[in-house]
Amino acid sequence: MTMAMSSALLTDHYELTMLEASLRSGAASRRAVFEVFARQLPGGRRYGVVAGIGRVLEALERFRFEDEDLAFLRDNQVVDEPTLDFLAGYRFSGHVYGYAEGECYFPGSPIMTVEGTFAEAVLLETVILSVLNHDCAIATAASRMIRAAGSRPIIEMGSRRTHEMSAVAAARAAYLAGFSATSNLMAGHVYGVPTTGTAAHAFTLLHDSEEQAFQAQINSLGAGTTLLVDTYDVAQAVRTAVELAGPNLGAVRLDSGDLAEVAHEVRKQLDALGAHKTRIIVTSDLDEYAIAALASAPVDVYGVGTSLVTGSGSPTAALVYKLVAREDADGVMRPVAKKSVGKPSRGGRKDAFRKLDATGTAVTELVTVSGDRPADARPLQVQLVKEGEVVGRERLEVARGRHRDALAELPATAHQLSRGYAAIPTVFD
Amino acid sequence: MTMAMSSALLTDHYELTMLEASLRSGAASRRAVFEVFARQLPGGRRYGVVAGIGRVLEALERFRFEDEDLAFLRDNQVVDEPTLDFLAGYRFSGHVYGYAEGECYFPGSPIMTVEGTFAEAVLLETVILSVLNHDCAIATAASRMIRAAGSRPIIEMGSRRTHEMSAVAAARAAYLAGFSATSNLMAGHVYGVPTTGTAAHAFTLLHDSEEQAFQAQINSLGAGTTLLVDTYDVAQAVRTAVELAGPNLGAVRLDSGDLAEVAHEVRKQLDALGAHKTRIIVTSDLDEYAIAALASAPVDVYGVGTSLVTGSGSPTAALVYKLVAREDADGVMRPVAKKSVGKPSRGGRKDAFRKLDATGTAVTELVTVSGDRPADARPLQVQLVKEGEVVGRERLEVARGRHRDALAELPATAHQLSRGYAAIPTVFD
Repeated sequence: MTMAMSSALLTDHYELTMLEASLRSGAASRRAVFEVFARQLPGGRRYGVVAGIGRVLEALERFRFEDEDLAFLRDNQVVDEPTLDFLAGYRFSGHVYGYAEGECYFPGSPIMTVEGTFAEAVLLETVILSVLNHDCAIATAASRMIRAAGSRPIIEMGSRRTHEMSAVAAARAAYLAGFSATSNLMAGHVYGVPTTGTAAHAFTLLHDSEEQAFQAQINSLGAGTTLLVDTYDVAQAVRTAVELAGPNLGAVRLDSGDLAEVAHEVRKQLDALGAHKTRIIVTSDLDEYAIAALASAPVDVYGVGTSLVTGSGSPTAALVYKLVAREDADGVMRPVAKKSVGKPSRGGRKDAFRKLDATGTAVTELVTVSGDRPADARPLQVQLVKEGEVVGRERLEVARGRHRDALAELPATAHQLSRGYAAIPTVFD
Repeated sequence: MTMAMSSALLTDHYELTMLEASLRSGAASRRAVFEVFARQLPGGRRYGVVAGIGRVLEALERFRFEDEDLAFLRDNQVVDEPTLDFLAGYRFSGHVYGYAEGECYFPGSPIMTVEGTFAEAVLLETVILSVLNHDCAIATAASRMIRAAGSRPIIEMGSRRTHEMSAVAAARAAYLAGFSATSNLMAGHVYGVPTTGTAAHAFTLLHDSEEQAFQAQINSLGAGTTLLVDTYDVAQAVRTAVELAGPNLGAVRLDSGDLAEVAHEVRKQLDALGAHKTRIIVTSDLDEYAIAALASAPVDVYGVGTSLVTGSGSPTAALVYKLVAREDADGVMRPVAKKSVGKPSRGGRKDAFRKLDATGTAVTELVTVSGDRPADARPLQVQLVKEGEVVGRERLEVARGRHRDALAELPATAHQLSRGYAAIPTVFD
């Protein structure tokens, strides 16, 4: 099983050379605070969706340097023997705080805060960012699609268009953001995401006629199944489908052509054949814009593949993991920040709150370094890891519900599909 | 270890429902030929790079339904008991042919051909496409960057911007395409890709001064290391770096600002300080266009992250897996193809050849269904799996060499970075 492997080598080489150099200089044991945040929302998005928190916690629990990992590091002279000794005994013993999964975020939101010694916290950078950059990108795209689809369900079916393990995480992120189901069986097995699917064109082509293929599918999956009707001629296929399955045919799927136009024709034909309850599922390179454009078409379910798993133009969330405070030579915690051109960072350990107006609509993302808790704002960070122990585990359904709530709280401008500014401003205090 | 897990559930639900329905209709045992090809090259690319063949072969060997997988399928009523029995005994026993890893491909090139019964071949669709769509997209982007960089090496450092396992595959694909090294330790461990890295801004910020940080790094990694000089003030940092490391300082890294301008200033400063051999490494959101734009700047090494792991605007290769021939009721193999609007497929099992002119330059991708072998053309498909046994395994270095050769064979137009048509036409015969 995937989940059992060590995650320790899913790490950039330089994390280990920094560890070695800091062990030698003595700075390795300084207390340190790292923060994960986005400098901007990619693609002119109005909000981001926090996803992958549960996967970060899994990766953190599996972050152990096994003998095999250590042998690789030794054989390739990545680090010296004292560093290998440190790694052999490595267990993260610090704290992690973060936005609960499903929350929305904005530029500068401290999505995750890792506190520990420099040595133990720096090692986690790569795997934390890999998980969050992927999952947040997918969930953010998925959330826009859900909004565009209104009350119509969306099925995730993009596994084949992305790395085989990204596919599993993408199905999880899409479900978190409101998708109804996935085609990916591993996501069903590992994360309990509902799975679904019926047949591809290959199934129709396999048989000597479309009629034989449809009959075979109905015999196996029942009249409530979804028949794919665009292998040859759509009108003929719909006629055959209803003849064989009767008016209780579950659905027909359209995967090519001008989907709006074809959906109108097929709806008319289904109704004329008495199949009023037969649903129409459309697939074929849909994204949030195509979904929105089909709002007035008689479509019942959307299937989304490529654009979901590739973040619909923004395949990574551009999150960074930055040292914001560390102990100095006198044992005092000091805020730190680099001054590199065009890459703003703010020093100091931050906390975050969402300010709402009297109607419960979000108005400001308040990011503070004071440690004070404003009275009239919702705190956003929760503790995820306490002294190395995961305390923030939760069921995916909980995060899914949280996202629904977080989305309902945003102002209407958050749901514009056009490129623009974040839906609410981030105020640093 | 990653490589040990079963890959069987990295599969779309509908592959299994098609299996069930075809087992019931009797069509499951029909001999079938599936082909992997691209209808077009995404992003107006001039050529594609075949990558992931080795990973497909690994996934195929691990494609076994374990008890745990079967229990999931049973508990969730994905398929019936006869189908579960079939899956429990599933071993692919057919043949796989394909383009050797590192070859270039064009629209319609039959990159992979899977022959077996429908039942055994249809199950492999999702995992084969996941691997190839990801790895080909990354390698294709990487190959363009390599060309843009000329003789200067490129280091892959994008792990943090993509799913943690995609990162490993991306490092592999980048190396295949000509990158020199990766930051990803797992890619070093699993695939033998050289790994490299020194320090991030956090290392400088950890110490009480930049000088202390540089000294700590030099103490640990030697004067030949790469010092990151843009945490505070670049000119001051370069001065400090050479003071501490001496003129044999290995390299300085620039990660912000106008890289061309800063590189010129830093080169001048390094030369004035006598550090003529100290190299300049630039990083910071580079892609093939930025690399090309830096051709005249005094840059020695490029580091590429985000744009590599996201396929530089084309994160998936858009490859499809289509049934092109299958046995009919009389046991005769018949070509098949769907007629869906705007999604051309050509029936029949294909073979492929690259025709070269007298100078050895590629002129045509010849795709035939005749079974004839043209005299004056290089055959492109090799056998990868024979009666279920992998016969096409090879070292990554071999594929890397093959890509260098395949690239050298393409006409000059292949190397234009602008969007356009494929470098050579695909002729179907």
